[in-house]
Amino acid sequence: MINDVLNKKRLGLELSYVEIRDFFNGFLAGSVEDYQMSSLLMAICINGMSEEEVFALTKVFIDSGDILEWDNISGIKVDKHSTGGVGDKTTLIVGPIVAACGVPVVKMSGRGLGYTGGTIDKLESIPGYRVDLNEEEILSQVKNIGIVITSQTADLAPMDKMVYALRDVSGTVSSIPLIASSIMSKKIASGADKIIIDIKFGRGALLPNINAARKLSPLLKKIGKIYNREVKTIISPMDIPLGHNIGNSLEVMEAMDVLQGKEVNNSLVDLCYDLASEMISMGLNISKKEAMDMVYKVIENGEAYQKFLDLIKAQGGKIEKLQVSTFKQNIRANKSGIIKDINAINVAKLSMSLGAGRENEDDLINYDVGVRLEKLYGDHVKKGDILATLYLPSAKKIKVEDNIFVIN
Amino acid sequence: MINDVLNKKRLGLELSYVEIRDFFNGFLAGSVEDYQMSSLLMAICINGMSEEEVFALTKVFIDSGDILEWDNISGIKVDKHSTGGVGDKTTLIVGPIVAACGVPVVKMSGRGLGYTGGTIDKLESIPGYRVDLNEEEILSQVKNIGIVITSQTADLAPMDKMVYALRDVSGTVSSIPLIASSIMSKKIASGADKIIIDIKFGRGALLPNINAARKLSPLLKKIGKIYNREVKTIISPMDIPLGHNIGNSLEVMEAMDVLQGKEVNNSLVDLCYDLASEMISMGLNISKKEAMDMVYKVIENGEAYQKFLDLIKAQGGKIEKLQVSTFKQNIRANKSGIIKDINAINVAKLSMSLGAGRENEDDLINYDVGVRLEKLYGDHVKKGDILATLYLPSAKKIKVEDNIFVIN
Repeated sequence: MINDVLNKKRLGLELSYVEIRDFFNGFLAGSVEDYQMSSLLMAICINGMSEEEVFALTKVFIDSGDILEWDNISGIKVDKHSTGGVGDKTTLIVGPIVAACGVPVVKMSGRGLGYTGGTIDKLESIPGYRVDLNEEEILSQVKNIGIVITSQTADLAPMDKMVYALRDVSGTVSSIPLIASSIMSKKIASGADKIIIDIKFGRGALLPNINAARKLSPLLKKIGKIYNREVKTIISPMDIPLGHNIGNSLEVMEAMDVLQGKEVNNSLVDLCYDLASEMISMGLNISKKEAMDMVYKVIENGEAYQKFLDLIKAQGGKIEKLQVSTFKQNIRANKSGIIKDINAINVAKLSMSLGAGRENEDDLINYDVGVRLEKLYGDHVKKGDILATLYLPSAKKIKVEDNIFVIN
Repeated sequence: MINDVLNKKRLGLELSYVEIRDFFNGFLAGSVEDYQMSSLLMAICINGMSEEEVFALTKVFIDSGDILEWDNISGIKVDKHSTGGVGDKTTLIVGPIVAACGVPVVKMSGRGLGYTGGTIDKLESIPGYRVDLNEEEILSQVKNIGIVITSQTADLAPMDKMVYALRDVSGTVSSIPLIASSIMSKKIASGADKIIIDIKFGRGALLPNINAARKLSPLLKKIGKIYNREVKTIISPMDIPLGHNIGNSLEVMEAMDVLQGKEVNNSLVDLCYDLASEMISMGLNISKKEAMDMVYKVIENGEAYQKFLDLIKAQGGKIEKLQVSTFKQNIRANKSGIIKDINAINVAKLSMSLGAGRENEDDLINYDVGVRLEKLYGDHVKKGDILATLYLPSAKKIKVEDNIFVIN
């Protein structure tokens, strides 16, 4: 059976539901070896999958675990997902805004692997914040304050987790069908009624270009339809970092700035408002225009920021203890002009080299380090201006390559 | 490095010699995991390799072990290889013919994995026959009788052996670049001056069709040229089995029949004479016509058969003790007509089910069982005629599917 399936996909033929189910279940059970699974994954990356195959794989992923049910929470449950980017702290901002507008938010997030931490890593930079809430605690907290951001429980699509770990080390991450199945299986198992997905493309994203993003989008919607979940997508570029801060504590601080209305008119704020108003529109069945008005209102009157503080407190976090490294180093402009580019990947690598990300699952993250971009895309700068501040792990200064800012 | 190489080949880009060397050497050393190697192998199967990449991979395989030198053997050393087929006992026939004509034969063969045994398995069906000769014994035997057929020593292209074992279980056998590197690395390491390769195509072969065979042929020659080895190829179909017998003892017996001139005018005899005359032509630098005359002569005067007996005796085999199972079962014609097809794969599967092949490397082969085709392609048969005799592992008769002979 195993070689038959591998040979079929090698030749670009379509696998049946039963073939997909038995191969992947075999992997979970140990009868299909990891070298056989990685071989199939590579064949899928190159030869693709039909829509029927993607639906089958998604079903197999979902069926490998539980499907959460939130019948006890009143209202339409709206979930949000991002395919990930450099400086993407949108969940920390969008969640409290949406909850402040009366739409319940139960967000199950992951840790990061690669250049930067995930949402859960960022929240753990707040001393005391608990990410391991059980189902009862989740329900009670949503009833009390309307928002929870916690770790994905082990029982949601466990097969996806196993397969993803293998993809990560076998050069098989970049595949529209595999990305679609992975995202949707977790989202559907998480139990939300409606889902908004931020599909990022560009050099700092999983997807290389807008064409790949445009292929992924309808696939996500079609999978949602099968499970009776409304899916909306936003396609956004990820060539330059989102906002000012890259790092864990640093990103929480920036989220607080945005929620307090201290940051306006940058790409991070625009994206957060866009995502939040889509979610509110979906959750309350109102127009996006009406939803956007609500977003402005809860930012202006402080309710969004208060919701954030309530969330942190409810999960045990002591926001007053949030800190960044006191060891700093500046990057200065070597000429005057306009900032024409900020390379997201090189910023991410720099942040990683400071200790803000993990290369292997067991690596420890240093929450206090990272990069703050003092100037953003389009800003005018003079030679000698501070472009970025690095928050270092020790007093020792580091050598920084001149590969982040392009000034012209 | 590992993910960079995987991503490049996933996208169909060309790998450098250094990338190929470091990845494969890493596999041998254990720093590249088997799931990473199988992922690369699948990407190579689908996206192919440039000629430069194939040359690089072949070099890496060769460099992983020793290169044998046969300077002490006078004359041009000619080696023969077959990409494998059902009932392929050509080495047992061609080797003695060529040696009888004065061309030294040092043949290093392998065991079989899959439906039938390899040349070494077939020879081991002769009680006492030794296949583990050391270099000294090989040299001394070639000087004495001009022929040796023994196991490939562990030190020839050991990396190819490791990679092949993984290809076998990861659906990555069918790839022209991988097949070319595998064959040529072993042949070049074996030290022959000239090499003839029988490329088989069809449902009973590694290559599916003549186009694949025609792609493989020039690649083998080009690799040979780099190492200053003349390579000739014969492209031959493998849809129906070669000759009458499929099994281990059975194939040795048929080889003896051919060497004694008892079989004439069938596809096995034609192929063996063709291969032998090519090798003699290459070894003695004479025309193929002259070489073919010598083949007829050594068959007719018994020198080829005597050479076979000398070979078996020299390596400790007791040919008088060769035996087949006494438990037999017939397949009879269910109608009259002409045999229009004999399905090689179904014959091979039947032979395998009797115990003549091994599924896993540790499986034991039953040398005494197999299938003898009493009628061949194109023969006229009457309803009730015996088409084939099965040599069974026990007295228990088996159920045979009607999927081997097509009579019309």
